[in-house]
Amino acid sequence: MAITIGVFDSGFGGLTVLRELLPLIPGAHYVYLGDTARLPYGSKSQITIARYAAESARFLANRGADHLVIACNTASALAMDEIRSSVAIPVTGVIEPVVSAAQQRHPNSDVLVLATPATVQSHAYRAHCAGHGLRASEKACPLLVPLVEEGWVDHSITKQVLRIYLREALSECTPQAVLLGCTHYPLIAPAIQATLRELGSHAEVIDSARATAAAIARAIGASHPPAAGPATFRCYATDSVEKFAHLGSQFLAQPIPHVDLLDLGG
Amino acid sequence: MAITIGVFDSGFGGLTVLRELLPLIPGAHYVYLGDTARLPYGSKSQITIARYAAESARFLANRGADHLVIACNTASALAMDEIRSSVAIPVTGVIEPVVSAAQQRHPNSDVLVLATPATVQSHAYRAHCAGHGLRASEKACPLLVPLVEEGWVDHSITKQVLRIYLREALSECTPQAVLLGCTHYPLIAPAIQATLRELGSHAEVIDSARATAAAIARAIGASHPPAAGPATFRCYATDSVEKFAHLGSQFLAQPIPHVDLLDLGG
Repeated sequence: MAITIGVFDSGFGGLTVLRELLPLIPGAHYVYLGDTARLPYGSKSQITIARYAAESARFLANRGADHLVIACNTASALAMDEIRSSVAIPVTGVIEPVVSAAQQRHPNSDVLVLATPATVQSHAYRAHCAGHGLRASEKACPLLVPLVEEGWVDHSITKQVLRIYLREALSECTPQAVLLGCTHYPLIAPAIQATLRELGSHAEVIDSARATAAAIARAIGASHPPAAGPATFRCYATDSVEKFAHLGSQFLAQPIPHVDLLDLGG
Repeated sequence: MAITIGVFDSGFGGLTVLRELLPLIPGAHYVYLGDTARLPYGSKSQITIARYAAESARFLANRGADHLVIACNTASALAMDEIRSSVAIPVTGVIEPVVSAAQQRHPNSDVLVLATPATVQSHAYRAHCAGHGLRASEKACPLLVPLVEEGWVDHSITKQVLRIYLREALSECTPQAVLLGCTHYPLIAPAIQATLRELGSHAEVIDSARATAAAIARAIGASHPPAAGPATFRCYATDSVEKFAHLGSQFLAQPIPHVDLLDLGG
């Protein structure tokens, strides 16, 4: 029987992880849950985030998931212990894979992490990087999520905002790698790489969605035989299924024909 | 005894209404509640918004409010009936006063409403305008709240974004008034007015915070004798009291020395 992989995010940003996963594991079935009714997690307390994430994890485990992907930076930063103790299946977060990829490509180096204000405030990337011998500077980029959600991924305004954020960050560090610490940012990865070059930086952009998908494919490949046929997916959202289908299609880079509405409570 | 006025918003945007109120009613005491743990209301369903808003209204009534101001566009658009039936005090929303001010200054005219996507989708402004003989075009401006929260109120990026939004809106209507349908927008009212001029529009910007405060001062003045001394205020937030104090000070245009944390539940 084909493997079922649960993918969780507070919204639809985690669909960039699903997009990378779909071609990697033939025959897999994905169940994606976006807890859109309760986003953004970033402004909530740790105890609330842990409760929401554990509820979502249990839902995906009950839907038959054999492996769980926490494609949400806030939950990966603040709730991995609670998620792991709430389900009996392996759980992969989004922070460890990208930090591990950076360490392999640029060992013992300075790295720059771009993320939302909440993720920066948690300093989860800094801690993971230190554990891998990397020195991390963290830069909060509050406008990037709204710009991506406005659909301005290849827009002059977005390029100007990137120039402002990256110039500020590069005035305080000289990174060899730039880690995308938010699942919205892969959509503007080319613009981030181009802006770094323009500002004289040779840093390599490392995409957390791609690094996470690769880590999961390795873990699954070691434990499950490959199945035949294309991968399939089903999406659940806790509110605004139309918005999810519309905006989510851009993150997944393919149409989402149907989204199921799910009530996880208050 | 001095009058107590409760002011409610999902966040700190409603502090622009409190800022306008403070000098208008001498001796008044204000209790402000920002339901920051559950924002943004705009992405939630009507039934959830109504429940949250009614809970907040009851809290403010129990804190001794004699009059309630719903300084939240989403709640004013979608939950006024539920709020009114949950408390026994007069309730003023933020939509009726600005539409009424527009009608008095530009009767039977075309107006443009700038608002968040959720407020535009509710078409509450269009309905209120129609009831006052005004023809409203509604323009969703999703980036303006994040730009104001980034503190870029007098920034070239914000001016460029305004030029894009207003050029799109003015290609479809020729308004005599522009209504600010979000409590964040008063902070960029001068930039909005300047951009309109630059694009050849003679429309007058009508600020909902100022219009709402004036309407409340009239209502209070008719029912309560003026008291002596400066107005005082106390702020409650349901999460992130530090962020509330920091960012809220910009909206209130004065320091907020203390914010009380309040738990309204899940």
